[in-house]
Amino acid sequence: MRPLILQTDFGTSDGAVSAMYGVAYSVDENLRIFDLTHDIQPYNIWEASYRLIQTVNYWKEGSVFVSVVDPGVGSNRKSVVVKTAGGQYIVTPDNGTLTHMKKIIGIVEAREIDESVNRLPNSGESYTFHGRDIYAYTGARLASGVIDYEGVGPLINVDDIVELKTIAPKKEGDMISGTIDVLDIRFGSLWTNIPRTLFKELNVQFGDYLEISIEHEHRIAYKNMIVYARSFADVSTGETLLYTNSLDHMAVAINQGSFAKAYNVGTGTSWKISIKKI
Amino acid sequence: MRPLILQTDFGTSDGAVSAMYGVAYSVDENLRIFDLTHDIQPYNIWEASYRLIQTVNYWKEGSVFVSVVDPGVGSNRKSVVVKTAGGQYIVTPDNGTLTHMKKIIGIVEAREIDESVNRLPNSGESYTFHGRDIYAYTGARLASGVIDYEGVGPLINVDDIVELKTIAPKKEGDMISGTIDVLDIRFGSLWTNIPRTLFKELNVQFGDYLEISIEHEHRIAYKNMIVYARSFADVSTGETLLYTNSLDHMAVAINQGSFAKAYNVGTGTSWKISIKKI
Amino acid sequence: MRPLILQTDFGTSDGAVSAMYGVAYSVDENLRIFDLTHDIQPYNIWEASYRLIQTVNYWKEGSVFVSVVDPGVGSNRKSVVVKTAGGQYIVTPDNGTLTHMKKIIGIVEAREIDESVNRLPNSGESYTFHGRDIYAYTGARLASGVIDYEGVGPLINVDDIVELKTIAPKKEGDMISGTIDVLDIRFGSLWTNIPRTLFKELNVQFGDYLEISIEHEHRIAYKNMIVYARSFADVSTGETLLYTNSLDHMAVAINQGSFAKAYNVGTGTSWKISIKKI
Repeated sequence: MRPLILQTDFGTSDGAVSAMYGVAYSVDENLRIFDLTHDIQPYNIWEASYRLIQTVNYWKEGSVFVSVVDPGVGSNRKSVVVKTAGGQYIVTPDNGTLTHMKKIIGIVEAREIDESVNRLPNSGESYTFHGRDIYAYTGARLASGVIDYEGVGPLINVDDIVELKTIAPKKEGDMISGTIDVLDIRFGSLWTNIPRTLFKELNVQFGDYLEISIEHEHRIAYKNMIVYARSFADVSTGETLLYTNSLDHMAVAINQGSFAKAYNVGTGTSWKISIKKI
Repeated sequence: MRPLILQTDFGTSDGAVSAMYGVAYSVDENLRIFDLTHDIQPYNIWEASYRLIQTVNYWKEGSVFVSVVDPGVGSNRKSVVVKTAGGQYIVTPDNGTLTHMKKIIGIVEAREIDESVNRLPNSGESYTFHGRDIYAYTGARLASGVIDYEGVGPLINVDDIVELKTIAPKKEGDMISGTIDVLDIRFGSLWTNIPRTLFKELNVQFGDYLEISIEHEHRIAYKNMIVYARSFADVSTGETLLYTNSLDHMAVAINQGSFAKAYNVGTGTSWKISIKKI
Repeated sequence: MRPLILQTDFGTSDGAVSAMYGVAYSVDENLRIFDLTHDIQPYNIWEASYRLIQTVNYWKEGSVFVSVVDPGVGSNRKSVVVKTAGGQYIVTPDNGTLTHMKKIIGIVEAREIDESVNRLPNSGESYTFHGRDIYAYTGARLASGVIDYEGVGPLINVDDIVELKTIAPKKEGDMISGTIDVLDIRFGSLWTNIPRTLFKELNVQFGDYLEISIEHEHRIAYKNMIVYARSFADVSTGETLLYTNSLDHMAVAINQGSFAKAYNVGTGTSWKISIKKI
């Protein structure tokens, strides 16, 4: 039996997620069902995409993810199930939720959900809750083996999977530039799209200082020297640091403070960050 | 083995819910335990009642729900287990939590919990946490088969199950009136008590405009024409719509906005809504 | 199979907790994984310590808790697994998280995690997420029986387990004094470190009034007579009461209100409370 992992922007304050659980459980009582998160900011497809790459590879081959951030529910956006390079499956509206997965980890196969088969019986009059009626139901069928991957529906072209715009990180001389992809919400750290492997080309050592500059809409939001540290414990409380985050990308933080709040920094491709060796 | 599904107003920021899980797990290690929600507004029995009808029917016959919103803990309010028309069980203080279940779905049998049998051993000095000591414990015993339904305690009259006041929706000429039962918290939509089946008697089509009026304590809180749409995707971002929600009742929303915040609309029987065909 | 119960200050809004689940599930697919809470205030070791004693004893002997509130991640603080007097295991950084467990329930054995064995393979470049790479991984190995307790690593001295400062409650004449350990977050009650057994030495009965005084940094924050009640239902809505909480300690509350908000009361050893028989 494959585990089923759910992500939505529904929150857990009402009964929506539990209805999804109930539908999945009804497909097979032995199904193991888990949560990624249900606190994606409403309609924030980018964040949903990012949380998938933060998590998917820690679940074994064959695991089935269901991600429902679906502002276009009821439109003609496709419903798909993709197979990742790591062998996990992701059930989702095809609206950009697979952006990072496609670019960073890789998608090897994609199928469109055949709703004539993979839709909760007697749910035909509900047009607003595909998370329950289509995605949880299809994910549960795939995870429990009621259908195999072919049973999802027809193959579609992986190239056609919708991608949000991203900007690739790049190195020019002694400077690497990238974007701020996401916040580590609780701790206020900025997670960039700059991989540690690219950063290492600057040939810096723990304890070196680098110039960090953050720009938004042609405004300098932050510019200062920051120490490259192995971990928060290497700097004083309240001190800034540049470090490698748990996804092996570069991140900026204040030890026991919130960098995002301190400097009013946001996320997305309009938030640019550069790291310069002095 | 029947699944056990928990609902409380305890939140999940402390150890209360986990203590309930521990008690249930101690009754039988193989028990499957799930959450409905633990974010019911403290003491809000009405909301607890509504979340049950939002969810119960998506869980199979025999599922055991435990709902603990219990401002009267320690008073003489009864502790009961009812069997619904769908064959699920609900373990709860009898304080109005079963209002919607009784009126809309139906309760076929009710029993009062015999605390001389169904109470966590050695919990006698605790008078404030029946969620752990009585409800989770009894629910787990019933779900795991340690007791059958008869083992809960003596039969009581279903008619005596406590109901909060509700107002039935009604159709007069070309107008249907009802109340605003609950908010879709994350998305700010208003969920009414008007079933789609009653609304259909107006003979309107997708794309038709209707006059929606919302009244509170003799004040008009909102009055405007709104399109009847199949789904959010049928209207522009920021546009209002009337639609059928995932419980097959009529609802009002702003696509990607919050209707509740935009017009300061609340919930309960004092919030009246009418839908008029023009 | 022993259950695995997780506690962190990570929140559940991003993918961190789900990555921990994935790692644990990868160790053994049959593992039962549960949450204590993930809403510990960031870096608040005291609160983590308190939530453990609130919960651990409701889980059976052999249960494995993982608690990760870890401001010193990457420092030389030890990683340990202790065995409690109740036979449960707790996997945690040794930073004070075990304070209440050691003082109140008791720790019978302690071992330091041998990271050369008990660390997620290929996680060596990540220095900031020991919750995933060491604690969840080691906890899952212990819970599933991949290692036994000896397999955690070498024995260390229980006396050396780090403790935060606490102040013991005491009785002097007709007055008992103690500290306010924690808030019942949702309901705004104050939970003290005064056990019911000590309070009973005052020989008071339900319905008696006692003088409650709360002091902070030599300022009187509250001083008034409060009734000793069996439960909230014994007093009027909005009335204060002194009662025995679900941990068998004395607590102060306002029925359906928040005592903490009403009088701006905080928690910790600087918040002193006294109960005086008049």
